[in-house]
Amino acid sequence: MYRIGNDKRKIQSANLICSGMEELMRTQDYHDISVTQIINTSGVGRATFYRLFDDKSDVVLYQMEMVFTELIRRMGPQTDPNVVVQSLFDIWLSQKGLFLSLIKANLYGEFQTQLSYVIGEKLKFIKEHVGLDDRNWQYFIHIRAAMLFTALRVAITQFNEDNSQDISNTLNELFGKQPLIFKS
Amino acid sequence: MYRIGNDKRKIQSANLICSGMEELMRTQDYHDISVTQIINTSGVGRATFYRLFDDKSDVVLYQMEMVFTELIRRMGPQTDPNVVVQSLFDIWLSQKGLFLSLIKANLYGEFQTQLSYVIGEKLKFIKEHVGLDDRNWQYFIHIRAAMLFTALRVAITQFNEDNSQDISNTLNELFGKQPLIFKS
Repeated sequence: MYRIGNDKRKIQSANLICSGMEELMRTQDYHDISVTQIINTSGVGRATFYRLFDDKSDVVLYQMEMVFTELIRRMGPQTDPNVVVQSLFDIWLSQKGLFLSLIKANLYGEFQTQLSYVIGEKLKFIKEHVGLDDRNWQYFIHIRAAMLFTALRVAITQFNEDNSQDISNTLNELFGKQPLIFKS
Repeated sequence: MYRIGNDKRKIQSANLICSGMEELMRTQDYHDISVTQIINTSGVGRATFYRLFDDKSDVVLYQMEMVFTELIRRMGPQTDPNVVVQSLFDIWLSQKGLFLSLIKANLYGEFQTQLSYVIGEKLKFIKEHVGLDDRNWQYFIHIRAAMLFTALRVAITQFNEDNSQDISNTLNELFGKQPLIFKS
C-alpha cells in the first residue's frame, strides 16, 4: 500500500511517477511495464519509488484513488442518481488505459470498494427515503457498485465506442431504471 | 494456470492437494497458508505439486472450477432462472471457506468469467426469447453475473446467517425479479 499522505514533496514525486506510468500505459500493456521503466520514464530514483510504492500495482491503485477524488470534486453536492452514474462513466471513459491496467492488476475488489463508498455517500438519502435497514443497504450499495463497474468493464473491453449515455441506457433497459427500490 | 487435463494420476494428485488445501482452509486464513503446508498436509511431493500447479492461488482456481462443474451437473437440464440462481447460491454457501479464499486470492475476474459462462449457457433462451442483440446480451450476462457474485460476497462476508432463499429475496426486492428484461 502506497505511503504518500499529505507530504508535498512525496505528492510531487508520486505525481511524476504517475505521469511516467501514464506515458508507458499509452504504448504498452500493463503486464509488460517494469518498475525500472517507470523510474526511467518519470525521472525519480529507485529509492524514492520504493519509499512511496510497493510495486507497480500500487501506482495504479494510487492513480485510481486520484480519479475517484476528482469524481467526488466534479459531482459537487449533486445527488441525482442519474447524474452520479453519468459522471462516473464519463470520468472512467476518459481513463480507459488506467481502467484496463486496474483490471489487469486484478484490482476488482479495490475498485468496487471505492465505488461502493463513493455512491454510498452520494445516495445515502435513498436509505433514509425508502427506510432500508442496514442489511438491505449493504446488499444494495455493493451490488449496485458491481453493476456499474461491470457495465464499464464490458464497455471498455468489448464496446469501445459506447459513450456514457449508451451505457446508462443499456443498464436501464436491461435492469430497469435504478434505484428500482424507489417504487417499492 | 494448472496443468491437469484428463490424466487419471494427475487428477488423483490434484484431488489429494485439494483435500489438503480444504483441510488447511478450515483452520487458517488463505494468506497464511504456504505451499509447504499444502504439500505436507496432502502427502504429495513438491515436484508433483509444481508439475500440476503454479502456486496456491492456482489450487483454489482449480477447486473453483470443480465447484462450477458440480453446479452444472446438479442443475441438469433445468433452465428456470430462479432454480439456476438458487442452485448457485446453495452450492457456494456450502463452500464458504473456498469462496473467501477466492476473494483473498483476488480471483474476482476468474469467478465472474466462469459464472457468466455458466449462466450464459443456462439462460441463452432469454436472448432468443427477448430478441436481444449480441451487445445487449454481453452487457446483460456479465452484469447479471456480477450481481450474483456480489450478493454471495456480501452474504458470506457480512451476513453469514443468510441462506440462499434470503439472498434471492433480497435481490428481487432491491433490483426487481430478474430477468426484468422479460417485461420489455
